[in-house]
Amino acid sequence: MTLPRIAVDAMGGDEGVRVMIEGAALARRRHDRFKFLLVGDEERIKTALENHPNLRGASEILHATDVVSGDEKPTQALRRAKTTSMGLAINAVKTGAAGAAVSAGNTGALMAMSKLALRTMPGIDRPALSALLPTLGENDMVMLDLGANTECDARNLVQFAIMGAAYSRIVTGRDEPRVRLLNIGTEETKGTDELQMAAAQLKAAAKDLAMSFDGFVEADKINRGEVDVVVTDGFSGNIALKAVEGTARFVADLLRRSFASSLRSKFGFLVSRPATELLKHHLDPNNHNGAVFLGLNGVVVKSHGSANAVGVANAVAVTARLLEHNITERIVADLERLGGSHLRRTAKAAE
Amino acid sequence: MTLPRIAVDAMGGDEGVRVMIEGAALARRRHDRFKFLLVGDEERIKTALENHPNLRGASEILHATDVVSGDEKPTQALRRAKTTSMGLAINAVKTGAAGAAVSAGNTGALMAMSKLALRTMPGIDRPALSALLPTLGENDMVMLDLGANTECDARNLVQFAIMGAAYSRIVTGRDEPRVRLLNIGTEETKGTDELQMAAAQLKAAAKDLAMSFDGFVEADKINRGEVDVVVTDGFSGNIALKAVEGTARFVADLLRRSFASSLRSKFGFLVSRPATELLKHHLDPNNHNGAVFLGLNGVVVKSHGSANAVGVANAVAVTARLLEHNITERIVADLERLGGSHLRRTAKAAE
Repeated sequence: MTLPRIAVDAMGGDEGVRVMIEGAALARRRHDRFKFLLVGDEERIKTALENHPNLRGASEILHATDVVSGDEKPTQALRRAKTTSMGLAINAVKTGAAGAAVSAGNTGALMAMSKLALRTMPGIDRPALSALLPTLGENDMVMLDLGANTECDARNLVQFAIMGAAYSRIVTGRDEPRVRLLNIGTEETKGTDELQMAAAQLKAAAKDLAMSFDGFVEADKINRGEVDVVVTDGFSGNIALKAVEGTARFVADLLRRSFASSLRSKFGFLVSRPATELLKHHLDPNNHNGAVFLGLNGVVVKSHGSANAVGVANAVAVTARLLEHNITERIVADLERLGGSHLRRTAKAAE
Repeated sequence: MTLPRIAVDAMGGDEGVRVMIEGAALARRRHDRFKFLLVGDEERIKTALENHPNLRGASEILHATDVVSGDEKPTQALRRAKTTSMGLAINAVKTGAAGAAVSAGNTGALMAMSKLALRTMPGIDRPALSALLPTLGENDMVMLDLGANTECDARNLVQFAIMGAAYSRIVTGRDEPRVRLLNIGTEETKGTDELQMAAAQLKAAAKDLAMSFDGFVEADKINRGEVDVVVTDGFSGNIALKAVEGTARFVADLLRRSFASSLRSKFGFLVSRPATELLKHHLDPNNHNGAVFLGLNGVVVKSHGSANAVGVANAVAVTARLLEHNITERIVADLERLGGSHLRRTAKAAE
């Protein structure tokens, strides 16, 4: 099967062109059917490509004169959609010149530009930023929203659940992914009114929505491998995601510090390197890089601004996987087949 | 200096009397000036005390016929304040029979009962659940609210900041603790209106409030040792706290699993035990047990329901420290001296 090519915003991220190109090259070495549209300053991309002939052969360059900066307001960036690398990468998805776009740039701008260019799917009010997180179980779990929508109502949360379940089916192969709403307790009375309303609606419709819904989950239980999809508003989701990342880094730092604190420990560290390498692999956010805006008519993936080449390659792999499994078409079909009537009921209930 | 005695709700917690008494006994072994009022079923307390003559000599028993159950609604528990161990422990603080109360029971009930019996301090609208979290720096940081108030306005957040700073002064010895509001980005435009309003008010008043306030902090930066007080609403605070706890456990499980995966690793694990013990010490929530309801006319400390004896002893130690440093009087004084005029302005701004 031929894979549509992936547009890479080569200018985004803390490290810029070099890391984005290196990451794309790494992804290409792993999967030689990947093809790319590299968007950005042509000269700089060409220079970066000199070290990566394998990527050069699989890529076309789309020159962009301009770059969205990290601290730019989304409204400001929107006005420069036709000249910036980010804007042009998204536009390539709109025109069909690419099947998906990856950017490590300003998240707010990426969201605003994607929404304007690609529009939300029929039946979806707002796109949600969604990522895979490691668990103790066999599969990663899907969490959304991770920061695209600061405040969400019950209707948004129900839509996020449907989109998250579609993503999880691809990841886990489960027909009925186990979906939960993130809350500060599992009792029905816990949390905000919107959360309670969303829970009631999902409970009533779980069968139609081809998901297993069992109410709320607390933030200390999300990575036990017992939940496939964790649904939350963008504020709480972002707090939870970053708390997880920060704690993982905290622990890695402690581990390093404690291993360095004695000669005996140093020796132990060397002997047990395979174990600590496994741990490092699990804790390194680069190995879980690539968050997707679900709910748009097209696939747009956000790579972390501080990701290294391995991280960028993983974001590209996430993008390819979503393309391969036609995530967009699958969500649209789910919404039509399962969610259509339900969402109308939800809309009424929420009014 | 004599320390007022501490009322212990001996019936709360997943393990009940045995663990609470063992924990109190452990705390007493560490600090022989601690005195206790043990509240609960007299027979069972006496039986548990048989193994702990040191505690028995330092304790009085207050018999309670009834227990607040874990899944009981706060409104229901309130009606049984005069017969339950939790209610009587709190009442002992009110009457002065004890200087503070510790319970491992139902958090919602503990909050409701404490609020009704002890009332909030003048100048404080709502108490906040506050705990110490480990950091990479020299000192623990104070985080509040951790779940007492699902939704908070700017005025609540400003009051939490003042209370958290008072707690942090005791913990860190700093005259001007570094206070931040938890948010999903550090730019001024990030987060809800209430957060932005709270930030503006704290910025304007930081000097009067004897704190160093520098806006927002993201959840991945709270444990770097660069912040002393993290202020948030109870929903986000609870999510952040549990995400931290869950990730720490996740990592500990991974570490165990990876060390067990090869003989070489097993050997490495043994050799590096001092390092992994240090890590375990940092990750075990028992070592950070004891969350206090700040803002009440009296000290009430929540011990985690699943805490072991070491955890209970740590909650008792937190209680003793707060008593020793007169946390209640210090917050009242801060509010009067620094916050009084400011809080009135805040109240106006929030209207």
